[in-house]
Amino acid sequence: MLNIFKSELLSDLILNDQYFMREALKEADEAYKSGEIPIGAVVVCMNRVIARSHNLTELLNDVTAHAEMQVITAAANHLGSKYLTNCTLYVTVEPCVMCAGAIFWSQLERVVYGTSDEKRGCSKTGVMLYHPKTKVIEGVLADECAQRMKSFFLKKRG
Amino acid sequence: MLNIFKSELLSDLILNDQYFMREALKEADEAYKSGEIPIGAVVVCMNRVIARSHNLTELLNDVTAHAEMQVITAAANHLGSKYLTNCTLYVTVEPCVMCAGAIFWSQLERVVYGTSDEKRGCSKTGVMLYHPKTKVIEGVLADECAQRMKSFFLKKRG
Repeated sequence: MLNIFKSELLSDLILNDQYFMREALKEADEAYKSGEIPIGAVVVCMNRVIARSHNLTELLNDVTAHAEMQVITAAANHLGSKYLTNCTLYVTVEPCVMCAGAIFWSQLERVVYGTSDEKRGCSKTGVMLYHPKTKVIEGVLADECAQRMKSFFLKKRG
Repeated sequence: MLNIFKSELLSDLILNDQYFMREALKEADEAYKSGEIPIGAVVVCMNRVIARSHNLTELLNDVTAHAEMQVITAAANHLGSKYLTNCTLYVTVEPCVMCAGAIFWSQLERVVYGTSDEKRGCSKTGVMLYHPKTKVIEGVLADECAQRMKSFFLKKRG
């Protein structure tokens, strides 16, 4: 009985990619509310969120203030290590060239993104910009991630 | 006579790419002294240095703290504008993929670099990562820029 109970508890505790992408989506929603392009990101280490942020290019008046850049810096700060070799980055939209470059340097173990970026996604360059050891997973909660972007740009044009 | 005098003065005042690369080299020397990979950068607007920095990845424990990233952020802060459309970035070593991506977003008018980076220079990807409007000039004081890097890595290995 105890074993069944334990295994039920464990199944509740399985924190999967969708769970963490929802955390990144919460950040995207924060961005949306403040008039920023709604992209959110979290960095996860040992099943714990160790850094979270969203796009702040307008607030900081800084083109480099993408969600990914900020969580990479914050996660390194949290761990006291430049390298994020045992971490996963969750981001609602495909990283751009700049962020792919930062992901490369950080040696992140995994990158999980929601929707692709047809215009500025780094995969549009046609070359592999990530570190060869970094596993890249796309399409997690893609529709929800894309919906934020669509709403934002529709509202902006309207 | 006055005209000749004026034109002589003007010729003294011509602040060319070599002049500003020497400013970037001063920053590279600061990096060297503090044990950072010796790469320096300045951003110039209307013949004035508006931002200067050097590689700070060790001090800040942050892989994103490249010289270029910092001067782009600082220059935008100085100008109160995200975009650096009338500015030139001088950097002693060829930008990496991350920095090329940041240069793209910043819409810098010109990028002038010293020595190429055979391993991690963005040109090694084989694709154009800069904004098509950004003019890129390479090889300004290349030997002096390369010399700093060689000394640094020789000393590190020794």
